[in-house]
Amino acid sequence: MAFTEQYDVAVVGAGHAGCEAAMAAARMGLKTALITMNMDLIAQMSCNPAVGGVAKGHLVREVDALGGIMGEVADAVGIQFRLLNTSRGPAVWSPRAQCDKAQYRVKMREVLEGQPGLHIRQAEVVDLVLDEGPGTRDQGPEGREQGTGNREQEGKGQGVGSREQGVEERGRRQVVGLRLRDGRQLMAGATIITTGTFLNGLIHCGEERYPAGRSGEPASVLLGEALRRLGLRTCRLKTGTPPRLDGRTIKWHMFEEQPGDADPTPFSFRTKKIVQPQISCHIAFTTPETLRLIRENVHRSAMYSGQIEGVGPRYCPSIEDKIVKFPDKTQHQFFLEPEGLNTHEVYINGMSTSLPMEVQWRMVHSIPGLDEAELLRPGYAIEYDSVDATELDRSLQVKSMEGLYLAGQINGTSGYEEAACQGIMAGINAALWVKGEAPFTMDRTEGYTGILIDDLISKGTNEPYRMFTSRAEFRLHLRIDNADRRLTPYGRKLGLINDEAWAEYEQKQARMVALEKLLNIRKVDAEALNAADLGGLTAVAGLTWAQLLKRPEVTIEPVMRALAEDLRKEPVLAEFVDRHPDDAVARAAFRNEARAVETEIKFAGYLDQQKKSIEKLKAAEAVSIPEWLEYGAISGLSREMREKLERVRPQTIGQASRIPGVTPAALSLVHVSIRLQGARRAVDRVETA
Amino acid sequence: MAFTEQYDVAVVGAGHAGCEAAMAAARMGLKTALITMNMDLIAQMSCNPAVGGVAKGHLVREVDALGGIMGEVADAVGIQFRLLNTSRGPAVWSPRAQCDKAQYRVKMREVLEGQPGLHIRQAEVVDLVLDEGPGTRDQGPEGREQGTGNREQEGKGQGVGSREQGVEERGRRQVVGLRLRDGRQLMAGATIITTGTFLNGLIHCGEERYPAGRSGEPASVLLGEALRRLGLRTCRLKTGTPPRLDGRTIKWHMFEEQPGDADPTPFSFRTKKIVQPQISCHIAFTTPETLRLIRENVHRSAMYSGQIEGVGPRYCPSIEDKIVKFPDKTQHQFFLEPEGLNTHEVYINGMSTSLPMEVQWRMVHSIPGLDEAELLRPGYAIEYDSVDATELDRSLQVKSMEGLYLAGQINGTSGYEEAACQGIMAGINAALWVKGEAPFTMDRTEGYTGILIDDLISKGTNEPYRMFTSRAEFRLHLRIDNADRRLTPYGRKLGLINDEAWAEYEQKQARMVALEKLLNIRKVDAEALNAADLGGLTAVAGLTWAQLLKRPEVTIEPVMRALAEDLRKEPVLAEFVDRHPDDAVARAAFRNEARAVETEIKFAGYLDQQKKSIEKLKAAEAVSIPEWLEYGAISGLSREMREKLERVRPQTIGQASRIPGVTPAALSLVHVSIRLQGARRAVDRVETA
Ligand SMILES: Cc1cc2nc3c(=O)[nH]c(=O)nc-3n(C[C@H](O)[C@H](O)[C@H](O)COP(=O)(O)OP(=O)(O)OC[C@H]3O[C@@H](n4cnc5c(N)ncnc54)[C@H](O)[C@@H]3O)c2cc1C
Ligand SMILES: Cc1cc2nc3c(=O)[nH]c(=O)nc-3n(C[C@H](O)[C@H](O)[C@H](O)COP(=O)(O)OP(=O)(O)OC[C@H]3O[C@@H](n4cnc5c(N)ncnc54)[C@H](O)[C@@H]3O)c2cc1C
Repeated sequence: MAFTEQYDVAVVGAGHAGCEAAMAAARMGLKTALITMNMDLIAQMSCNPAVGGVAKGHLVREVDALGGIMGEVADAVGIQFRLLNTSRGPAVWSPRAQCDKAQYRVKMREVLEGQPGLHIRQAEVVDLVLDEGPGTRDQGPEGREQGTGNREQEGKGQGVGSREQGVEERGRRQVVGLRLRDGRQLMAGATIITTGTFLNGLIHCGEERYPAGRSGEPASVLLGEALRRLGLRTCRLKTGTPPRLDGRTIKWHMFEEQPGDADPTPFSFRTKKIVQPQISCHIAFTTPETLRLIRENVHRSAMYSGQIEGVGPRYCPSIEDKIVKFPDKTQHQFFLEPEGLNTHEVYINGMSTSLPMEVQWRMVHSIPGLDEAELLRPGYAIEYDSVDATELDRSLQVKSMEGLYLAGQINGTSGYEEAACQGIMAGINAALWVKGEAPFTMDRTEGYTGILIDDLISKGTNEPYRMFTSRAEFRLHLRIDNADRRLTPYGRKLGLINDEAWAEYEQKQARMVALEKLLNIRKVDAEALNAADLGGLTAVAGLTWAQLLKRPEVTIEPVMRALAEDLRKEPVLAEFVDRHPDDAVARAAFRNEARAVETEIKFAGYLDQQKKSIEKLKAAEAVSIPEWLEYGAISGLSREMREKLERVRPQTIGQASRIPGVTPAALSLVHVSIRLQGARRAVDRVETA
Repeated sequence: MAFTEQYDVAVVGAGHAGCEAAMAAARMGLKTALITMNMDLIAQMSCNPAVGGVAKGHLVREVDALGGIMGEVADAVGIQFRLLNTSRGPAVWSPRAQCDKAQYRVKMREVLEGQPGLHIRQAEVVDLVLDEGPGTRDQGPEGREQGTGNREQEGKGQGVGSREQGVEERGRRQVVGLRLRDGRQLMAGATIITTGTFLNGLIHCGEERYPAGRSGEPASVLLGEALRRLGLRTCRLKTGTPPRLDGRTIKWHMFEEQPGDADPTPFSFRTKKIVQPQISCHIAFTTPETLRLIRENVHRSAMYSGQIEGVGPRYCPSIEDKIVKFPDKTQHQFFLEPEGLNTHEVYINGMSTSLPMEVQWRMVHSIPGLDEAELLRPGYAIEYDSVDATELDRSLQVKSMEGLYLAGQINGTSGYEEAACQGIMAGINAALWVKGEAPFTMDRTEGYTGILIDDLISKGTNEPYRMFTSRAEFRLHLRIDNADRRLTPYGRKLGLINDEAWAEYEQKQARMVALEKLLNIRKVDAEALNAADLGGLTAVAGLTWAQLLKRPEVTIEPVMRALAEDLRKEPVLAEFVDRHPDDAVARAAFRNEARAVETEIKFAGYLDQQKKSIEKLKAAEAVSIPEWLEYGAISGLSREMREKLERVRPQTIGQASRIPGVTPAALSLVHVSIRLQGARRAVDRVETA
């Protein structure tokens, strides 16, 4: 008798993707297993001990708004909170928190263990159990036909839809379980693989290299082989990490201090309190000697010696990358970031490297104030297998393999937040699939999460993909302050937002609507203006406060002061005035709510205009490309276009339009051919019947 | 240019041995590196989340008395304290604490990082750097000659001696540094290897096996090879661990609760407070079904299928061992022990196994109350290389290799405490060696630590060695309450006990001396007896309290009550009366002090008698066997005796007497030959001069 446990959903790997995936599936009522190599290293921060940052903070907010956990955990163990980009427009404000790395693991594990239906298992997954369906991918278009009826609707399945797709389409091979190193089998309705950098991981440090999943942890070789056997296209990527210093050997006074915000902005809409004592980071710069050292030794970096085949992240470059690619820059900034409250370990943000240890040491010592610094852990690069994400559909399911989902670094991304947002989406979709319900997808106008997934599945990536606000077409719509308005209703429908959180959400929305209404009704008067220190404004006669707010120089804070009496009168608005003098988090929350209203008013014109473009994009997104479409049969389509389209097999015209190099002309041809080939198929069916 | 860091002492591995070793060396003022595979897993409890227990608790007390850290760390994170064996004699009372496993790691790391001169480095050590001396071990007696002058004195070098041995004796190969996986070299005056179960570790779980250092951590293969290349005799041992359960799936009410002590007894003489909230463990029993299952499947256990070559610990047997070896027992007890305050993980103490997962699962489920329990981590066995400890001298230095020390599981022991006491001894001795001072050794009459080391280096072990009180010849002398009196003066001389701790130690000794004096002077009177509920005693006329205390039925507590007024009069004794009603730890401390005095008085006769035997043993210990002694030249010595003696090359007659099978006759021959051969050598020297 083979020993097997039976689950609805199995998640492989308890990194940042896996934790969200498992949590989402379990909260949706499914019996979920989270299998990971070492339970003591759950949610390990492989690289910097921080969550968030520009665009990444948006992702955390989105995960949180959907009902994920990364935000709450980071809030609980955050030791320095900063709202970034506050000098710029509200679209790019983004929260970031330095975290206590050891406590992040402890807290995440506590949260996971607190979730009914979530079963953590320590084991190495070594293989997948397959149920080979009657028709497989290799059998060509005919084999795939039976599922088409459902597929066609998928593009429209934005948000939480009804039971449409998935269960009946059994023409493909299916993953039905996992084999563990300890001999067990574990059967599951759906499987999500989130193995990060572990698949065939190979560490490089100068001239040295050896297999590992992360420094001090074994690589996942057998599972890597198993995925290759499935025939999935893989890619070789790399990423790197800086050395860590002993804080007691840093001359802190020689660096500029960077304190956190006085009013910390939590990630989670549900966080009420920042509990950890707060610390400062410090700012530092390279010297000419640093640069000289790196230049002279760059040929010894694993990156440049030809030893690494994998492609590294363009936007988290190693220090040697920066110096090679920007030869004119005479100095580079970096940050000294403590890794926790109980440790002296310090992370050097900005000094990722795979130079030999000797050079790392000299490099660090070339910086005044670090001249006696000791290196606790070496910087290194790691090369690993990722799967070409064009193998996935929008629900993160592998197209050729039913019941198999991939999320996180394995899909070619880099970063905890990028992993987490895929994790929650994969968890949700695996759960929906098991329940026989339509997938939950997010389009590019709804969130950075949607953008990330769309980019990945449409274009794949040949370098680690990281989120930026510039990737968004409509970024003023995708703000941190409205992530809840954008996504929490979905989270609620999916079962990820509990009653209490939902009630608070609704109160907040009511408050904001009431505030906007008040601003739109109430006229400004000279007395109130003076009281709010806005006395210098001219041509205010007859204006509402909302109209006044459209002026760039007017911000919401003085306006709120001017309106204090009116706010107090409306029960729902009174909280804005009672400014919680002792509660920094509440203060920040209310300030942010008011600012969100300001943003909506100030940029109303621009936002409306963008809405039109959004409609257009949504329309293109609504035209789904049926799976049976034969690109080879579209006359006029160049070979180049055909190859690009066949590689990705986009699910909508919108997605097709974002495949690099696909021309508008080609799109029209595809569009027309859908109808043409569809009609021809209808005729065929009648004739063969 | 090869990049090298330079240290006085390098410690490989931050397990329980390595942490103590590094701490001791650093506290002794030496620049110390602690190199470990994964800084996030420092002081990982590989098996049960508890410190202490019978005999093991003695070891922790000794480590603490010398100035080690295990006791303080366990006190800081202990969540259930129990003083074991209180129904038996004071020799075997022993403290034990269930610990929060995650916090144990965090706290230990914090303590290590707080120590100046201690440098933690994350890296895998892959090789040793050797300095091949002019004469090596293989060159026979001549090559070793130059060091003899010092060696002869070594046996007497009990405790902290003056500069005698070590530095000049350069005839052997010397370890001068380490090579790290990341390409670094690290040079050190002395090196201590404490790699636990990692050397060529191989995990077994039923029919499955794969290399690992511990579950989820890579094995140390290259360093294992390097040690073999040195020509050290190695052994293949094995140990095992039980599965871990999800506490939420245990029906707790079906098990007997085992709360901790109301007055927790800390390990450390320096602990002032137990800070963690305290929890209960639970007691459980196997059922006939459990036994049937195991019996039917025992052939599938890695232990019994022939898959494991290594020898397991006789005294921490696996559950299948227990059932095979005690076929008449119808049930076995085990304990359900929580692994921490923030986790639901539960350790099943007493159910270590390498049966297939399927059988583990059924075995657990065969117990009422665990019938729905979920297994978080599988039980497994691990086989690993250990070094034959007869390769070591009493300072834990490898005899054939200068500057190389081994401590912990690598020497064939099992258990955190056994590792820790070797760790501190190796750390101290490596430091002394680097300073050119005589080694610090402990004999069998001074502590369990001395017994453990003597057993190991004299006899080696072909199964994992664990401490028991029965291993001690004079166990009433080796109590937990007098570990400080036995060892803290050494710790102070060595530089491991700071001023504050030393002052407290001295106060305590003064208090105990004063109490003993008072008891010896003050006569009992009927009134006081009655007041102390001792009115029923007869024939008390003219007796001192001390004389009364010799009676088995009289304990110290009522006597202290009777003497309250007298105690209050002496400032040094007043603390005994003022019983700290709100401070459980202080209360326990004072109670234990008084009890220690009681023990010394009650058993004075027996203790004195033992002292004579101790003198005899010490005398044999004082006769050191010079390194140049040629066993081959001792006429009358049987081949068997010669082989045994040559294998171990004991350093004293005492040590020789404990080699299994060595007869008293053989000992006399050796004793005589030392003088004979010595005289002959003196003659030779004169002649060749
Ligand atoms: C050296 C290094 C440097 C990095 N530098 C950066 C950087 O500069 N910037 C940046 O944004 N990101 C960086 N990252 C990436 C960041 O750590 C990841 O993006 C993020 O952790 C990915 O999350 P994940 O959940 O996909 O995988 P991970 O966090 O890697 O988690 C993977 C999990 O899967 C488990 N696992 C693997 N194989 C198996 C198996 N067979 N069976 C069971 N469990 C398994 C592992 O134990 C682990 O728990 C770096 C990562 C590394 C290792
Ligand atoms: C599965 C299992 C079951 C056990 N069961 C029991 C039991 O039932 N009863 C009992 O008393 N004891 C048991 N033990 C043993 C107990 O864990 C050990 O006795 C104790 O941990 C030994 O301490 P140590 O310091 O010698 O080694 P460890 O605690 O094992 O620490 C070794 C350290 O060395 C590091 N290391 C290894 N190789 C290298 C390298 N090349 N470079 C750098 N660092 C390296 C490791 O990372 C680790 O930090 C068990 C151990 C295991 C693994």
